[in-house]
Amino acid sequence: MYIDLNADIGEGFGIYRFGQDEAILSVISSANIACGFHAGDPLHMAATVELCLANKVAIGAHPGYPDLAGFGRRDMTLSSEEIKSIIIYQAGALSAIAKSLGGSVSHVKPHGALYNKAAYDEKTANAVIEAVLRLEGPALIALASSPLVQMARQKGLRVYEEGFADRNYNQDGSLVGRNSSDAIISDPVVAADRAVKMVKEKKVISLSGQEVWLEVDTICIHGDNSLALQTANEIKRALNFNGISISQPVRSENTRR
Amino acid sequence: MYIDLNADIGEGFGIYRFGQDEAILSVISSANIACGFHAGDPLHMAATVELCLANKVAIGAHPGYPDLAGFGRRDMTLSSEEIKSIIIYQAGALSAIAKSLGGSVSHVKPHGALYNKAAYDEKTANAVIEAVLRLEGPALIALASSPLVQMARQKGLRVYEEGFADRNYNQDGSLVGRNSSDAIISDPVVAADRAVKMVKEKKVISLSGQEVWLEVDTICIHGDNSLALQTANEIKRALNFNGISISQPVRSENTRR
Amino acid sequence: MYIDLNADIGEGFGIYRFGQDEAILSVISSANIACGFHAGDPLHMAATVELCLANKVAIGAHPGYPDLAGFGRRDMTLSSEEIKSIIIYQAGALSAIAKSLGGSVSHVKPHGALYNKAAYDEKTANAVIEAVLRLEGPALIALASSPLVQMARQKGLRVYEEGFADRNYNQDGSLVGRNSSDAIISDPVVAADRAVKMVKEKKVISLSGQEVWLEVDTICIHGDNSLALQTANEIKRALNFNGISISQPVRSENTRR
Amino acid sequence: MYIDLNADIGEGFGIYRFGQDEAILSVISSANIACGFHAGDPLHMAATVELCLANKVAIGAHPGYPDLAGFGRRDMTLSSEEIKSIIIYQAGALSAIAKSLGGSVSHVKPHGALYNKAAYDEKTANAVIEAVLRLEGPALIALASSPLVQMARQKGLRVYEEGFADRNYNQDGSLVGRNSSDAIISDPVVAADRAVKMVKEKKVISLSGQEVWLEVDTICIHGDNSLALQTANEIKRALNFNGISISQPVRSENTRR
Repeated sequence: MYIDLNADIGEGFGIYRFGQDEAILSVISSANIACGFHAGDPLHMAATVELCLANKVAIGAHPGYPDLAGFGRRDMTLSSEEIKSIIIYQAGALSAIAKSLGGSVSHVKPHGALYNKAAYDEKTANAVIEAVLRLEGPALIALASSPLVQMARQKGLRVYEEGFADRNYNQDGSLVGRNSSDAIISDPVVAADRAVKMVKEKKVISLSGQEVWLEVDTICIHGDNSLALQTANEIKRALNFNGISISQPVRSENTRR
Repeated sequence: MYIDLNADIGEGFGIYRFGQDEAILSVISSANIACGFHAGDPLHMAATVELCLANKVAIGAHPGYPDLAGFGRRDMTLSSEEIKSIIIYQAGALSAIAKSLGGSVSHVKPHGALYNKAAYDEKTANAVIEAVLRLEGPALIALASSPLVQMARQKGLRVYEEGFADRNYNQDGSLVGRNSSDAIISDPVVAADRAVKMVKEKKVISLSGQEVWLEVDTICIHGDNSLALQTANEIKRALNFNGISISQPVRSENTRR
Repeated sequence: MYIDLNADIGEGFGIYRFGQDEAILSVISSANIACGFHAGDPLHMAATVELCLANKVAIGAHPGYPDLAGFGRRDMTLSSEEIKSIIIYQAGALSAIAKSLGGSVSHVKPHGALYNKAAYDEKTANAVIEAVLRLEGPALIALASSPLVQMARQKGLRVYEEGFADRNYNQDGSLVGRNSSDAIISDPVVAADRAVKMVKEKKVISLSGQEVWLEVDTICIHGDNSLALQTANEIKRALNFNGISISQPVRSENTRR
Repeated sequence: MYIDLNADIGEGFGIYRFGQDEAILSVISSANIACGFHAGDPLHMAATVELCLANKVAIGAHPGYPDLAGFGRRDMTLSSEEIKSIIIYQAGALSAIAKSLGGSVSHVKPHGALYNKAAYDEKTANAVIEAVLRLEGPALIALASSPLVQMARQKGLRVYEEGFADRNYNQDGSLVGRNSSDAIISDPVVAADRAVKMVKEKKVISLSGQEVWLEVDTICIHGDNSLALQTANEIKRALNFNGISISQPVRSENTRR
């Protein structure tokens, strides 16, 4: 039994540092690297790719809205063509940097407001799917159980469904919104238990206390503060303790769905 | 007998248009497409790639300094690592867009202040060469007879030497600086004659009236004003009249040097 | 009898030009100058202020979302604090440039998506009002009959209500959306007639053919294409023919409301 | 006896934090606030102004080159008009934010590469002087003993000459370049002694061991790492121990020169 752990890294810019990439890289199997629109720049991308290669962590593109001031977390009304082209642009830039250093891009995970919108908005979902299909290679990381997952699979795109061990879920499998005080699970041990349950039972306990079916290929890990890092380490420990290894999704298995 | 004609296109941004890309595409055989740093954005890049494919014009990356406000014409003091990574980033972004539309990047031509600095500054030249080598594929368009040309060839990079039919040359084969009133040749017929002489005789008449040896693989065409477009058409007419066809450089021939 | 005519100008950026500022400045009495976030840059702002001073046209700030690639036309989800601070920042930058050249900022007109959102969204409206109040001086140009107008006046802000001669109106006084084929009135003579009716009768004919009360202090003029310029000139001609002079709003009169 | 201590603050951007502004504000009497071009954004500027007001620290504009990726530390070849307009734009934006919160801009200190170039390059110096003169109010902080100081005073601009307690000086009063291993003085006690000597004796010991005359109105304090903060506190302690109070420059005194 195994599970992929992914984290957003390379989110500095210029002289700015963000997160604790080195520490988080010792936990995860897949990294989502900022590509210069919401964070990151060519130098940070190259350095981050090198860190991934050194840690044998899969390199993923993490394209966001063109909004450095808002870190890609502010929703923007982009056309389908704009969404498609900014994803291809950012993933292409990372791909060239990765290739120049001996690596390659294994997956694409949209960032922030784009990730959230793509999960449920049909127009945005289609644009994201079309973009990743055109890249001919990378898989898509998408919110587990979201409409985006099924839409992408119907179009023949390989999808890794993503779960959140440190976030609460509604009964319908959607995440409790960040504006709710119940959004985040801050106890590392609780988060770790939930990660184990996701992998072993394919289930999560919703906010209302009921079990919700949730099949995930990858679990999102945060590393942007010391508590997050503690949670990350606790999740890794609990997974290992339960005999679950941490490893990138197997491509053939995923395609089967 | 044949020669490549190249032009910078796709230099709009957002709602802004620049130059007369459709008109110039009917003249040239190679296009240098802005990649988002000094001009261009993902949507413009996609539209411009489509225009190139429709006109059977070679697609080239035209990376510039990260200076939209200055159109990449202002010199910036970047480190070698910065230069390398911004070139790979921009060319990679264009490459992914080109591939998504059925094309590929055949060459890289640095833009503006970066082009000028790379021609003569050793550190910048080495960074540019290293970047294009790492892209594994595209040739480099460089100022004919500049130190960059020899340095790049010594490192095994395919180089297309570029001449300017509408610019005056010094006796040493360098361009007369733009701050000089003699920099530009504004008579389309004179420019066209010089283009023909470059191709047939591999020579240009310097400002002081003497013949200078100048072997070029490609001639730069401008399309950002009506006179430039008139000159472009006159050059094409004169080349054809002299039995010189307009065509992309042959790879094998170039490698021989 | 008189009316203010206003237009958005100074919307170029770097080497890019946009619109026909010189021509439109001979028609209008008030200008809204882009301040660097959706368009414009310090050099363009200085040049545009000088044009306004030469044409005795009132200088207004035209702050937009921080979205150069989208020209401020894409909606963005900003917090109230972000909206307030970007308006004060942009208006302050223009104010300093204007003062350095002997002028001053008479009004603020939010741009594009921010203008539209402020007209009807309470949170955005409050942020815009708060920002302009803090600037202590400039009036606010707001969509005539929109909630923003009354909210701003209740807080003691001087407001100029803006009408559109070349746009169709719904029965409730709102603009027909741009996604409708009926949004724009492209016949210059019809637009000019509507401008005259707005001023003389304080009325506009809605899309359904009925008269709608619309009291405007200023009419928006466009100058970004040749038809727009033709319409602008026709509006000026018709106003003058009907004895209506073109002049900036009188402050005392407006405050009375 | 007193001296002004100044530091660059407000140099975060979006979600990025930089430096330890709260700690440094308890040491200094004057702050130089980033204005959005090399660092800072409208929200950070407002928050930083509020910190200055709470700490009774003078608010200064810290305009830089338009180069967020390079933090304004990379030299750029701007025209005089560009330099003038970007300084007025940035200082104006800060001024409006400061006024909206009950403060005002007391001085302008160019940032990074612009600061260094202005100190010795005549064209840049003139552009900076012209810009600050046009702002009608703020003083200019300039490198002590640099040509910029005399040029600015000749044009009637109030100038505060700046010394660096933690940098080595050449015999001619210029700073030892950062590319030299001798550039920085890392011992907090040595730096503090130098600060005291600058104030009491108006002298600094050059790298070659000789006393150099250096009359300073303000000493630059750094706060971007823990050692810098330690040095800052040590300088404050040593000044106070020697009966030197920390206080903003007196305007009348300075004008006398």
